[in-house]
Amino acid sequence: MNRIAATYGVLGIGNAIVDVLGRCDDAFLAAEGIDKGTMTLIDDARAVALYAAMGPAVEVSGGSAGNTMAAYASLVGQAGPPGAFIGKVRNDQLGAVFAHDIRAAGVAFTTPPAADGPPTARCLILVTPDAQRSMNTYLGACVNLAEGDIDEALVAASAVTYLEGYLFDPPAAQAAFRKAAALAHQAGREVSLSLSDPFCVGRHRAAFRALVREEVDILFANEAEILSLYEVSRFDEALAAVRAETKVACLTRSEKGSIIVAGNEVHVIDAEPAQVVDTTGAGDAYAAGFLAGHVRGLGLAMSGRLGSLAAAEAISHYGARPVRPLAALAAERLGLAA
Amino acid sequence: MNRIAATYGVLGIGNAIVDVLGRCDDAFLAAEGIDKGTMTLIDDARAVALYAAMGPAVEVSGGSAGNTMAAYASLVGQAGPPGAFIGKVRNDQLGAVFAHDIRAAGVAFTTPPAADGPPTARCLILVTPDAQRSMNTYLGACVNLAEGDIDEALVAASAVTYLEGYLFDPPAAQAAFRKAAALAHQAGREVSLSLSDPFCVGRHRAAFRALVREEVDILFANEAEILSLYEVSRFDEALAAVRAETKVACLTRSEKGSIIVAGNEVHVIDAEPAQVVDTTGAGDAYAAGFLAGHVRGLGLAMSGRLGSLAAAEAISHYGARPVRPLAALAAERLGLAA
Repeated sequence: MNRIAATYGVLGIGNAIVDVLGRCDDAFLAAEGIDKGTMTLIDDARAVALYAAMGPAVEVSGGSAGNTMAAYASLVGQAGPPGAFIGKVRNDQLGAVFAHDIRAAGVAFTTPPAADGPPTARCLILVTPDAQRSMNTYLGACVNLAEGDIDEALVAASAVTYLEGYLFDPPAAQAAFRKAAALAHQAGREVSLSLSDPFCVGRHRAAFRALVREEVDILFANEAEILSLYEVSRFDEALAAVRAETKVACLTRSEKGSIIVAGNEVHVIDAEPAQVVDTTGAGDAYAAGFLAGHVRGLGLAMSGRLGSLAAAEAISHYGARPVRPLAALAAERLGLAA
Repeated sequence: MNRIAATYGVLGIGNAIVDVLGRCDDAFLAAEGIDKGTMTLIDDARAVALYAAMGPAVEVSGGSAGNTMAAYASLVGQAGPPGAFIGKVRNDQLGAVFAHDIRAAGVAFTTPPAADGPPTARCLILVTPDAQRSMNTYLGACVNLAEGDIDEALVAASAVTYLEGYLFDPPAAQAAFRKAAALAHQAGREVSLSLSDPFCVGRHRAAFRALVREEVDILFANEAEILSLYEVSRFDEALAAVRAETKVACLTRSEKGSIIVAGNEVHVIDAEPAQVVDTTGAGDAYAAGFLAGHVRGLGLAMSGRLGSLAAAEAISHYGARPVRPLAALAAERLGLAA
């Protein structure tokens, strides 16, 4: 562990994506052949066709790690330590939107935008009346995130480097991902990974298994993802497997809350009550809450409760990033000093 | 009056704008020198500086007449008659967003985007905790809307041509505005105008006075706008003045409801109760409701009630365009066949 105080609490690295959020019914998902509740990678032609078919939409900055960093910044507020983000946009209008929003949230973001190549990534998110979101991601400029974009000093100055599993989809980003993890450990810092999505785990299972064993200090996964990682059918089996392999694992189970295991320490954290409007960003917010507690040394149980609180806020409105200032919410509900 | 049935109920002509909606407090408005509740025109440099200063935002298609047409389409639903829109975007990402959203709402939109010149217009909308919105408009590509964009056949095929007063700000659009009004009357159709904003009225008072006397069949104005138009201090004086000059005037007064005057006919319409979240688009939605009733021959009173209903829906959520399908709401609340 690096004894030099970190300048940043968390450095998130992920796909820099603008969400295009629209409402639809189940018939639309069926007609378009979309699996409800999952993330599907789509190419440019499909992105154009699906956008043309979907209803009026709202554009809002997203991306899994981007959402996590926005929620993290809202949780730590002025007290810090601040967060930073690495991700690749193009120098186009949606790239400017992404950069503005993450900076305006209080997150340091200095990755240079691509000057050519595909446009800024978009995720066409279809929200059904049951508050489920089905995501269709066109990676666009994210395929240009490369090792050169990993700022070594920034990684060394961050207590935790947080990587979203989705970053394994664009091939060059995998190398950036591995470089960041290696640099973090060289600097005596921690590495955290979110498994992101069960299908993403399916696409990269062997690599994720190796990463979890060898590189990951803090793992985030929901039930479907951890079952997919270990190819088991019972949550309890996945729990035993992950417990043997990581320092800390946070396993989220929607309304059943979360389980945090770290060696012999086990915490069962209840979900915070919420009026569910749109589940987009629940997992991202949970990771933000946990990490905000962790980097401030609040312990696993309180960190987990912060995760539940942030997730409850995220699902109580349309869109993934926080609407209410989370530091104030944490002060009010958990008695944490803002 | 043209005896040939119109293909379109309403043709809206206005500035094609993408709204950039963010929350702020009163101190931010004061620091930025922004007059709460009004619309200010800003140049490119100010648009960049204000965007950099404001918090995280959401992008959603807007524009006064664009909002009206989206609400109109939601109100008439499949039953029709459909609506159409003329407005100028650039061939950039935000232009594609505007075009998608208005078409996805069910509105015909065929104005060709500009291939060069300024980017698609943006309106930086700051929403304060009291639900007031302060608008800062960068007109961008809207300055390129010109007479050539007024499709004569489309105007002749529309029962009502609806013009937003804001269209008087970009100079070339004024000529397009006058051409559209003249064509509509030549085709035996009606012309409707919204005064848009008290400062907009102040900028173009003489021209608006002449238009109201000579060209406008159906006028929409809120209290501040109609007082500004006639430079009087009492609502009752403005009422008398407008009554002498237009066929139909719909004067909206926020929570006090609206007054509709048409010759000797007078209707006092109550506001629909609503939980106010964001007043953006209330006037646009009222015009949509009134016109949807008017083109279906429902009479002034029922048309006014449709206006109130659409306005109440608009202010009950963040953003200007309807979230709930308005045809279903009208069926439920007013017993209108969907």
